[in-house]
Amino acid sequence: MSEKNIKITVAYNGKNFNGWQKQKDSLGIQGELEFACKSVFSLKEIEVIGSGRTDAGVHALGQVANFKVDTTIPTEKFPEILNNRLPKDISVLSAEEVAGDFHSRHTAKRKTYRYQIYRSKIRSPFLKDISYQVKYDLDVEKMKREVKFLIGKHDFCGFMSSGSSIKNTVREIFDASVFEQDELLIIEVCGSGFLYNMVRIIAGTMVDIGRGKIDESMKQIIESKDRGRAGHTAPPQGLFLKYVEY
Amino acid sequence: MSEKNIKITVAYNGKNFNGWQKQKDSLGIQGELEFACKSVFSLKEIEVIGSGRTDAGVHALGQVANFKVDTTIPTEKFPEILNNRLPKDISVLSAEEVAGDFHSRHTAKRKTYRYQIYRSKIRSPFLKDISYQVKYDLDVEKMKREVKFLIGKHDFCGFMSSGSSIKNTVREIFDASVFEQDELLIIEVCGSGFLYNMVRIIAGTMVDIGRGKIDESMKQIIESKDRGRAGHTAPPQGLFLKYVEY
Repeated sequence: MSEKNIKITVAYNGKNFNGWQKQKDSLGIQGELEFACKSVFSLKEIEVIGSGRTDAGVHALGQVANFKVDTTIPTEKFPEILNNRLPKDISVLSAEEVAGDFHSRHTAKRKTYRYQIYRSKIRSPFLKDISYQVKYDLDVEKMKREVKFLIGKHDFCGFMSSGSSIKNTVREIFDASVFEQDELLIIEVCGSGFLYNMVRIIAGTMVDIGRGKIDESMKQIIESKDRGRAGHTAPPQGLFLKYVEY
Repeated sequence: MSEKNIKITVAYNGKNFNGWQKQKDSLGIQGELEFACKSVFSLKEIEVIGSGRTDAGVHALGQVANFKVDTTIPTEKFPEILNNRLPKDISVLSAEEVAGDFHSRHTAKRKTYRYQIYRSKIRSPFLKDISYQVKYDLDVEKMKREVKFLIGKHDFCGFMSSGSSIKNTVREIFDASVFEQDELLIIEVCGSGFLYNMVRIIAGTMVDIGRGKIDESMKQIIESKDRGRAGHTAPPQGLFLKYVEY
């Protein structure tokens, strides 16, 4: 018996799932992956460990997870055979064998999130589940300047939803940018880690700054450490976990 | 009483609809629009005439329809108030008053369809309902050359699904192109009108030519007037009615 540690990269449309995590009354993405693995590898139990949770409605372009399994099925076949057993809103993009001490959450070094904004007074039937529709005019040049204040090591306690018991709220942001892509306005943030709802609060604050509802600079808001001075929590459907680096 | 003739442009994601047309057991896009109009304008009956039917699963970026109504509501408010009553997969993009003899089907001069192909061995949770996943390698340069043979006035009876009672199968194609856009391969065709399933058969034939399953040229296939020599009917979810010109 030789157990392999398998790292998988997974994309999912979060619309129809109650988030990454297994719940009492729903499998979640994690539970769906475990269900597929149990079926493929004929196991009673298996744990699929994700790099982190995503909330209900949040998507992933490159979530990373790992699990340990003893099987003779070649690793390169995992994506196809797992996908055959997964809901079509979930897709295993790749699978590779990694060192035994690889842990998708503990050893993650950088995560990149993407937040998609659709600026229009009229809804789009094709973008409604994958973007945040904003009806206001946004000052994109201002947003491009302001987003840069996120870069660096800061105490982001003003960018965390209440209810979190976390003590250390310092996080390092390696890069942050705002850019236009086709019909969408994109906010991308790469960091060492993120607090609960942090990217959605960043996105909401960026929108409030862009439309002039918030007059303060992102610099002052971060320094205030005051949730009340940051903006609203942007909705989940605009958020994508883009990739995780190790 | 002064009846206005209203032209609306409508986008819809066809995934959850049984096509444009009202059916015994489903409203269809047309029925949903009529239902919303009846509610907004307090009418018992109204007919919303589309530029043409789209099949179940087919989408529209710019379907055109018209209806006659006597109302004091300003026309520019129609999109917002209709959208408030429509399923979120349908969106009225614009509304304008037009001459009384405008008829969205009879007076249409050109229609443009877009067909989206996703070339990948692994499915995408975000593209599965809006593209045709093709797992084979495609010779895109060859497709770009072959698609040009569609242009001109031809008898397209080989590009029509059986069961149609139509007599005149000559149609004029004004433009046809194949191009890459982000992750997608796009086929766009603009013509005077299209036979039943014609664009989906064109798309299937282009794919079969691109992957080398069909050796003949599009020119020969058109000239043969033989449905058996054209390719398969590509699935509905890749097809978009892009716009209609008058």
